[in-house]
Amino acid sequence: MTIGVSDEHKLMSNGDIDVTVSEVGPRDGLQSVKRTMPTALKIRWITALAEAGLREIEVGSFVPPKLLPQMADAEDVVRAAVKIPNLNVIALVPNLKGAERALASGVHTITMPVSASREHSMANIRMTPEQAVEQVRQVRQLCDRQPAGKRPRLDVGLSTAFGCSIQGDVPEDFVFELARKVVDGGADSVGLSDTAGYANPAQVKRIFKRLRSEIGSKAGAAHFHNTRGQGLANLVAALEAGVTTFDASQAGLGGCPYAPGATGNIVTEDLVFMLESMGLRTGVDLERLLAARSLILEGLPGEPLYGYLQEVGLPKGFRYANA
Amino acid sequence: MTIGVSDEHKLMSNGDIDVTVSEVGPRDGLQSVKRTMPTALKIRWITALAEAGLREIEVGSFVPPKLLPQMADAEDVVRAAVKIPNLNVIALVPNLKGAERALASGVHTITMPVSASREHSMANIRMTPEQAVEQVRQVRQLCDRQPAGKRPRLDVGLSTAFGCSIQGDVPEDFVFELARKVVDGGADSVGLSDTAGYANPAQVKRIFKRLRSEIGSKAGAAHFHNTRGQGLANLVAALEAGVTTFDASQAGLGGCPYAPGATGNIVTEDLVFMLESMGLRTGVDLERLLAARSLILEGLPGEPLYGYLQEVGLPKGFRYANA
Repeated sequence: MTIGVSDEHKLMSNGDIDVTVSEVGPRDGLQSVKRTMPTALKIRWITALAEAGLREIEVGSFVPPKLLPQMADAEDVVRAAVKIPNLNVIALVPNLKGAERALASGVHTITMPVSASREHSMANIRMTPEQAVEQVRQVRQLCDRQPAGKRPRLDVGLSTAFGCSIQGDVPEDFVFELARKVVDGGADSVGLSDTAGYANPAQVKRIFKRLRSEIGSKAGAAHFHNTRGQGLANLVAALEAGVTTFDASQAGLGGCPYAPGATGNIVTEDLVFMLESMGLRTGVDLERLLAARSLILEGLPGEPLYGYLQEVGLPKGFRYANA
Repeated sequence: MTIGVSDEHKLMSNGDIDVTVSEVGPRDGLQSVKRTMPTALKIRWITALAEAGLREIEVGSFVPPKLLPQMADAEDVVRAAVKIPNLNVIALVPNLKGAERALASGVHTITMPVSASREHSMANIRMTPEQAVEQVRQVRQLCDRQPAGKRPRLDVGLSTAFGCSIQGDVPEDFVFELARKVVDGGADSVGLSDTAGYANPAQVKRIFKRLRSEIGSKAGAAHFHNTRGQGLANLVAALEAGVTTFDASQAGLGGCPYAPGATGNIVTEDLVFMLESMGLRTGVDLERLLAARSLILEGLPGEPLYGYLQEVGLPKGFRYANA
């Protein structure tokens, strides 16, 4: 197994790109910020991200607006985003009710969280993991009742797959039991999330390899939080295990307020820089991507932004992977 | 090749540890800070780091005090540090004159920089790479003239081995040509340094593998700067290539003043956390290590400190590799 452009990556590559960077800032980032970014700004930001070359953006969350007022405009954001060319528009959906809203908005992909930690699952969505799997099954059936051409893709992310800040260890066997059940329930892909910054590279490589062996081509994206600064290190391990889709957030948006500097997500800019330097094509233009940071500040003045690349710039002689 | 406790790591392990974390803060860190930490504080800090379990510390630099007044007390620091039990005391030496001072102080290991970038070499030490190799040869001869039991180990670090902020690309073949010449000149080990934060994980894995094939067991440590946030990601790639010694700096000391947040070195605390989580024994106690941060602030009040672990603490259920 090689770090870099392995045969596997070539095989899995989406035509002209080797790795898909899936931007989650407009959802995972903005829902972590107490203030609400105005809808028009969200749409301008998402447009700028797509114009920088990102092919997937998670643009919002269909949760009850009372719980997350920052996401109350999800319908409007999705309706605008699906008009952007060459963009897979993703929305998070916790349950059947959210799925109905998402379908009405015309989203391309629904992503549902299922927690591998029993305690986190109850605290987060007041459902057992098994009940969350049942929601996936019902959403699949709802999607299948849509007319052809209007059936969204259904991805699932297994939260706390590497450990949980409530219950501590999460048994690995249970992660794979859930992954199989979710596939049985009709998910198109199952990714793994390090919700609390608990993962280490050895564990990441072992678990993503086993995910591939358990559910084959339905093995999905890696979503690493950067709580303990291990995000890119874990990502290199996931690359070694053959993962080709990675979530990241512009400017690391989603920082925990109790942990200054401990950004919530891998910083998209630093990730794209790393992948392109490694010879893995992302399709993203770094200058345009960096320029899009200004829209966050326009919508959320004073919000702390993270990342290294914008401070020091590209190395002398930097070349994109396709150069 | 496995990330984690591979057979190779077990084979290379120094008895009760699998990976050597080589602390460079008192040298690489303090020389990047304009103020000078008082000698007594340096010695207390180094003692605290050793008591936390670090087995190697680069404690100072024998460069002309006019150039780096922060390092003018190198003799005193080394003389105190060599009294600490179970500690390999390292000092940086640029030339024969520095080596004479280092030998007189009783240092255990001399480390010499040889730059793989011709332009960086001239700018940094006013010598060509070939002249720097000749210095290594002369220092080797000087060491060999010492009485048995007083001959220090001689390590060389090839600076800018992954790219240079002055000349851009550094030809890989020249890196290995230099490595072979340095071994011919009598170095006990040859490590590679990413001086300007140019390395990427694919390159790191490729180059360290080739280093092993070119100079065998004399392949030495990895020294990664974190300028673009890629430090731990590159380190995971170096682990994959079989590297077992890694430089790091407490609190990331050595930040470039022109790049806020872009720390100079990998943060020792975050690195030890990663390695222990992966099942690789470092011998380091994280609580004691984190506590030693306070000595930096005692010696350099207000100095910015970096790192994630001290902000969020250890994960629930964290276990050391030897637990």
